[in-house]
Amino acid sequence: MREVAILGIGQTRVDEHWDKSLKELAGEAVFEALKDARRESVDAVFVGNMMSGSANHQQHLGALIADWVGLRYSEAMRVEAACGSGGAAFRSGLMAVGSGAVESAVVVGVEKMTDSPGDEITAALATAADADYEADMGLSFVALNALIMQRYLHEYGWKHADFAPFSINAHRNALENPFARFHEAITEADYHKAPMVADPINLMDASPMGDGAAAVVLVPADSIRGGATITVAGSGSSTDTLAVQDRQDALWLSAAYRSAKQAYDQAGISREQIDVFESHDAFSIMAALSLEACGFAERGQAPRLALEGAILPTGRIPIATRGGLKARGHPVGATGMYQIVEIAQQLRGQAGATQVPDAIYGMAQNIGGSGSNIVTHILKRGN
Amino acid sequence: MREVAILGIGQTRVDEHWDKSLKELAGEAVFEALKDARRESVDAVFVGNMMSGSANHQQHLGALIADWVGLRYSEAMRVEAACGSGGAAFRSGLMAVGSGAVESAVVVGVEKMTDSPGDEITAALATAADADYEADMGLSFVALNALIMQRYLHEYGWKHADFAPFSINAHRNALENPFARFHEAITEADYHKAPMVADPINLMDASPMGDGAAAVVLVPADSIRGGATITVAGSGSSTDTLAVQDRQDALWLSAAYRSAKQAYDQAGISREQIDVFESHDAFSIMAALSLEACGFAERGQAPRLALEGAILPTGRIPIATRGGLKARGHPVGATGMYQIVEIAQQLRGQAGATQVPDAIYGMAQNIGGSGSNIVTHILKRGN
Repeated sequence: MREVAILGIGQTRVDEHWDKSLKELAGEAVFEALKDARRESVDAVFVGNMMSGSANHQQHLGALIADWVGLRYSEAMRVEAACGSGGAAFRSGLMAVGSGAVESAVVVGVEKMTDSPGDEITAALATAADADYEADMGLSFVALNALIMQRYLHEYGWKHADFAPFSINAHRNALENPFARFHEAITEADYHKAPMVADPINLMDASPMGDGAAAVVLVPADSIRGGATITVAGSGSSTDTLAVQDRQDALWLSAAYRSAKQAYDQAGISREQIDVFESHDAFSIMAALSLEACGFAERGQAPRLALEGAILPTGRIPIATRGGLKARGHPVGATGMYQIVEIAQQLRGQAGATQVPDAIYGMAQNIGGSGSNIVTHILKRGN
Repeated sequence: MREVAILGIGQTRVDEHWDKSLKELAGEAVFEALKDARRESVDAVFVGNMMSGSANHQQHLGALIADWVGLRYSEAMRVEAACGSGGAAFRSGLMAVGSGAVESAVVVGVEKMTDSPGDEITAALATAADADYEADMGLSFVALNALIMQRYLHEYGWKHADFAPFSINAHRNALENPFARFHEAITEADYHKAPMVADPINLMDASPMGDGAAAVVLVPADSIRGGATITVAGSGSSTDTLAVQDRQDALWLSAAYRSAKQAYDQAGISREQIDVFESHDAFSIMAALSLEACGFAERGQAPRLALEGAILPTGRIPIATRGGLKARGHPVGATGMYQIVEIAQQLRGQAGATQVPDAIYGMAQNIGGSGSNIVTHILKRGN
């Protein structure tokens, strides 16, 4: 596969966008990415989205968005892997450009969740879990994660309070990200007094839903005069059981381990060379499990990493540098593309107050379901 | 992109499968394709599906099906382009294997529609149309096609009766296809007396929904000892406006024209070399418009082609050779993969009573929406 570069990036703020439709949100991110890339058109449009069929009564987003952004007649399709849809769409775009099937592509992740009543969104989110073995038993998505976190606390002896640094770091980093949903720093006291959602997950452990879109323009690296700024150095993708109960070990994200290993191997680097990591912190427990599966912490030791400050922008393995799912927000099918855009910002030196100094390799990991479908990408800063 | 071959095929009958869940249906087709390919595993699973989120309260089919068929840990994703989901998934699998990102893949199209009430399915089908400009105005999918057919009759002076050969051919060809939903030949009289659905579309112009799955195994052509039997010679993909009203000409499927041209060019052949064509005859008007856009008939002349017998298995451009959407059935997200499997059967000489003699090139064209997203593939018989 030929080397692929990210030529342009664009994003909308994650928010309640009452004044914009789904296609307008997607369009905003795509236009920004095209402008940033100094391109007027591309050959193909890949859309990452999870729930527009139910939340917006509109499927077929490929053709809808291609036409809306002035790319009528281009190739287009939608890619879905639940909350991992954005990352999966990015991988699709990568394979399309990498294979030579097309010479350029836009990948856009988009989700518009806040038009629908909360119970409908909760039901739509539950379609990411196993309908027969989980959702039909009354397990919502947060309940599944609560069971996993409960087991983690039991197994390794941590207290709920030990997870506070994940949320505090995310909210602090979001402060100066204009695209983040929340711009409020939180304290340990805020973390402890937050309302319970599903024991032990409280409101400060859980990422908020929202409306948003993020996009990139992909081209072959050798098509860029003067050399590419950011290339895709590694891409990995792996699944695990859809139902958590079917796993031998509910505390080990084997799909994160496998997809990260594929990405490291393809990039030809070890995990120590990753300068910045956008993990899928939909719940604080997921940030912890990702850090462990990707090799940044021993099993059961991710809270220690957080307590020691290693996850801060100045730390050994900075995460949620633009707010993460927790504070930038989690418009589910768009999230994987926000992660890619944010890593690109870090590698370009455009991350403002939370810039990781001299970042060369950045990693984004997008999780579909409770660790069921995980896509990991490593981006590299060019010459 | 390296050349890709179809190593195995599998399908279930299109039917009301009350005794099988969506994953069981998909599994049946995948197991059959793997057995046919003499493979136990593949690197990746691509799933074409349109409406499982609403019809089966289950999204995230990539991970679900990968695990169910014993391919836990493989890469997996779902691809959606409304009724064109199967063809889009096939193209995704093609790009994945063609790029070298994976060494093998299963592509499976699956849809389970008959568990849900009819009005829910009608609403789910309407999400393939433009929510703002079509569905919200009360236009169902059949109504949209009825408007197009009405215009066609008006513009070119044909009568409804002139479309009878499309349905008669489809039903006759399905007679000996064990995977077809219907095994009843119909006469001209049957066609004329069929109940009206949306004037001028009557029941014999419309394809039936159903449950079904169809799958193939893809590998690099050069990995097959003794040479590949069937290769993908051409692949094209194009969009058009999502809303029919936005087109300059509602009777010209520009996305069919463009994607077919891409496929012809890539295969290095002209349309005269196509021996068999599985068109997207969701409604008889769509079969006619496809034949015209792909160059098999002059504009407005497709009914003449049908009346002259050119679309029969013995004719110049055989279509619906295994029953087509009309009589094999149209489990929407699976249809594009049925077409691929049926073309493979023709090229292998496994099409029984409706075998097209000495077929070398076969074409499958899958349409999403009312011509909004069209994927065209040309398969070639090897040595």
